[in-house]
Amino acid sequence: MSNLLELMAGLIQVFHSYSEKEGNKYTLTKGELKTMMQEQLGDELSQCNDPAEVDKVMKSLDLNEDGEVDFQEFMLVFALLTMACHEFFRDHKEGGKEGCKEGRKEGCKEQK
Amino acid sequence: MSNLLELMAGLIQVFHSYSEKEGNKYTLTKGELKTMMQEQLGDELSQCNDPAEVDKVMKSLDLNEDGEVDFQEFMLVFALLTMACHEFFRDHKEGGKEGCKEGRKEGCKEQK
Repeated sequence: MSNLLELMAGLIQVFHSYSEKEGNKYTLTKGELKTMMQEQLGDELSQCNDPAEVDKVMKSLDLNEDGEVDFQEFMLVFALLTMACHEFFRDHKEGGKEGCKEGRKEGCKEQK
Repeated sequence: MSNLLELMAGLIQVFHSYSEKEGNKYTLTKGELKTMMQEQLGDELSQCNDPAEVDKVMKSLDLNEDGEVDFQEFMLVFALLTMACHEFFRDHKEGGKEGCKEGRKEGCKEQK
């Protein structure tokens, strides 16, 4: 299977490895979302030991406000995170003005 | 590296393995897009031996009409394709009414 198709299948698989734990197997409950954040994003990104943080993330993902995250809502946040990662690497690779935006101070120390 | 982060890195890598072949290394030219379609999606999906087909795909991806496909435009189409795949598998797994939509006749023969 080619790379892009492998990546597509991988995404569907990751989503279902969590969405099928409880309730509707095509959506993530808050509990499933929390487990996914802990296991997939690790502590640095997820900070999901704080229940209020999980509520905030759930609220921002659950666009149709049905209390669950479906595959479409999951894909939207995955795409946004991936674009943010891409921009971060591009900025750093280019070391350009954007490369030293206020938010990335630690990465720009050596360029001062 | 966790699955989701691996998939993100994989996507950025696939994009750059084509975008860096010619011109701006952060965008796909029509030629790079055609090569990606051929190598990644294979003949069934890409039908890109037909130049008019590649023009059509290019036009639909190139939202800002600058003649190139940037990472954001690439992510949008990747997300849409992945959602379409997910829906296809879900419909087939469920074999429900959607599962026998007109467009998927071959998959529904045994249910007639």
